[in-house]
Amino acid sequence: MVVASAPAKVILFGEHFVVYGEPAIAIAIDKRAYAEATLRKDKLIYINSVNLGVSGFFKGRHFQPEKDKATLDKLVPIKNSVTKVLGKANETIGVNLDIQSDIPASAGLGSSAAVAVSTTAAVGYLVGVKLSKEDVFEIALDAERLIHGTPSGIDPAISTYGGAIIFQKGKDFKPLDVKLSIPLVVGNTNLERSTGELVAAVRRMRDYYPSIVGEIIKIGGEIALRAIEALKRGDLKVLGELLNINHALLSVIGVSNEALDHLIYAARNSGACGAKLTGGGGGGCIIALTEDSRIKKVIAAIERAGGTAFQARKTDEGVRVEP
Amino acid sequence: MVVASAPAKVILFGEHFVVYGEPAIAIAIDKRAYAEATLRKDKLIYINSVNLGVSGFFKGRHFQPEKDKATLDKLVPIKNSVTKVLGKANETIGVNLDIQSDIPASAGLGSSAAVAVSTTAAVGYLVGVKLSKEDVFEIALDAERLIHGTPSGIDPAISTYGGAIIFQKGKDFKPLDVKLSIPLVVGNTNLERSTGELVAAVRRMRDYYPSIVGEIIKIGGEIALRAIEALKRGDLKVLGELLNINHALLSVIGVSNEALDHLIYAARNSGACGAKLTGGGGGGCIIALTEDSRIKKVIAAIERAGGTAFQARKTDEGVRVEP
Repeated sequence: MVVASAPAKVILFGEHFVVYGEPAIAIAIDKRAYAEATLRKDKLIYINSVNLGVSGFFKGRHFQPEKDKATLDKLVPIKNSVTKVLGKANETIGVNLDIQSDIPASAGLGSSAAVAVSTTAAVGYLVGVKLSKEDVFEIALDAERLIHGTPSGIDPAISTYGGAIIFQKGKDFKPLDVKLSIPLVVGNTNLERSTGELVAAVRRMRDYYPSIVGEIIKIGGEIALRAIEALKRGDLKVLGELLNINHALLSVIGVSNEALDHLIYAARNSGACGAKLTGGGGGGCIIALTEDSRIKKVIAAIERAGGTAFQARKTDEGVRVEP
Repeated sequence: MVVASAPAKVILFGEHFVVYGEPAIAIAIDKRAYAEATLRKDKLIYINSVNLGVSGFFKGRHFQPEKDKATLDKLVPIKNSVTKVLGKANETIGVNLDIQSDIPASAGLGSSAAVAVSTTAAVGYLVGVKLSKEDVFEIALDAERLIHGTPSGIDPAISTYGGAIIFQKGKDFKPLDVKLSIPLVVGNTNLERSTGELVAAVRRMRDYYPSIVGEIIKIGGEIALRAIEALKRGDLKVLGELLNINHALLSVIGVSNEALDHLIYAARNSGACGAKLTGGGGGGCIIALTEDSRIKKVIAAIERAGGTAFQARKTDEGVRVEP
C-alpha cells in the first residue's frame, strides 16, 4: 500500500491577464489531496473518491459504477493517469485507488490536478516505476487536458513542485523563491462557475474595447511584477494593496460578482491586509492576505457573510510519497 | 416676490480623473433648488432654509440664528451671493430668502451650488439688477469657494446653464449636445463623505503607484471620450457598459466602498443598463442608467438594499426665474 499526496494551488496575481501574455504568480497551499494505491489480483482499476462521492471499476474504457455515475467524467482523467503509469511498468495489473482530499472541488483551487498528481505518484511508487517530478507533471497535465481542453499547466505544475511559481505564456515555469509563508484565508462562495466562459467573455470585451481592456491587461502585468518584489521583501502591506488593486482590475473586465465582492468586503472589514478573487471568477474563491493574529476574525467574518473559509499558507512541499 | 430655481448635477463620467487633466461629463438633472426672495424694509438679510433646518438674520457679518446654528457655515455662501447682488444694485436694502430644495444635501449632487445659483438669480431679478448667466455663474462660483476652497466650477456651471457639459482642467466648459434624455435612477447611500479627503487619498496612491494609477487615469479619460460618442448616438447599452467600467476604475483607485457597491449591484441585478458611483465616492450617490420600463424596479431594489432612490433625467433648463 502506497499513499502519495499533492497540494492545492491558489493564483495570487495575474489570472485572466496571463491569457494575454502577462505574468501570473501561483503558490501551493497546505491543503492536499491523498491517493492510496494498492495492487489488485485482477486487471481492473477500482477508484473510490470520497469527495466526489463516486466509486467504480474501469475495465479498459468501460466503467462500471458502484453507486453514481454523475461525476464519471471526473474519474476518467484519474484512470488515464493510472493507465499511463501502468503502461510504463509494462505490466497488465490491477490497482485499487482510494482518494481523499482536503481541497474543495470545483473551486478553482486545482483539486483535480492535485488528485491526478498524487494518483500518478502513488501508482508509480506502487508498481516500482521510477517517475521524476517532470514525469509526474507531464502525466498529470495530460489528465488535465481531458478536463480543460488546453490547460495552462499551472495547476499540475504547482501541485507537483510546490512553492511559488511565475507563469508566463510561452515561457517555462519559473520558481519564485519566497521566504514569506504568505498567510491567507481562502473564502469560498460555493458558486459553480465556468472559467472557459469567463475567459471567452473577457475576450469579447477586449474585442469591443481593445485599447481599454488592453491597458488593463498591461497594468495587471505590472501588478504581478510589483508583487514579486513585495513577496521577496515580505511586505504584507504592499501585497495587500496590490491584491486589492488586482481585484478591482478583474472587476473592470467583468469577472467579479456580488458574491465574491461580498466576501472580499467581509475580509477587508475584519482586518485582512487585502483581498481578491482567485481563479476564473464568477464564483469560486477569494483569497485574503491576513496577519496571523487576525486569521480567526477574518474566517468568522467570511462565514457570517455566507461563505465557507479556511486558513492556508504557502507550502514548499509538492508531490510526496507519504511514509 | 420672485422665485428662481436651478437644477442639481450628476457627474456621468470622469470624476477624480478630471483632477489629472482628463475630461469629465456632467449633466443637469430635473431636481431643483428654489429660492424665493422678497424685499424687507430694514437692511437685514433673512434666510430660511427648510432643508438645512436653519433660519436667521444676517446684519453685516453678524448672524443671529432663529433656531439652530449648526449649519451656519452653509448659510454664509448664500448670504455672500446676496450681498454681491445687492452690491451691484448699489442700494442698501434688506431681503428675505426662503429656500426649498428637491436636491438631497451633502450627496454630491451640487445642492449648495443650485442654492447659490437660484438665490443669485432671484435676488438679482428682485432688485432689478440685470445679471447675465455668466454673472450668475461667477457669483455662485465665488460662493462655492467659501465651501470648497478651490472648486472645479462644474457644479455652478451645470446649475446655471443646464444640459450636459464636458469639463477639462485648464479648458473652458464645453456644452455637449445630447438628444438622449439619459434616464437615470439616483441611489443615495446617505453616508456623508469628504471629497477633499478622497481626492487626497487618490493623490497619495498615485504617488506610490505612479505608473499604475497614471494608466488608470488615462483609461478613465478614454472612457469619457467613448461615452461622448455613445451619448450622441443614444446608445444605452454601451453607455451602461462604460458606466460599469468607469465604476471599476474608481474601485481601482480606492474610492468606492461596500455601501456604494451594494446599491450598484442592486441596480444592475434589477435591470439597469449599468451603474457607477457619482462624485467623490466613499459614500454619497450612485447613478444607474435605466430604461423607462425598469425605473420602478430599480428604485425598489435600491431601497430594499438600504438606500434611498429617485428617478432623474437630463434637463436642459439651467437657472430660471419662475413665472
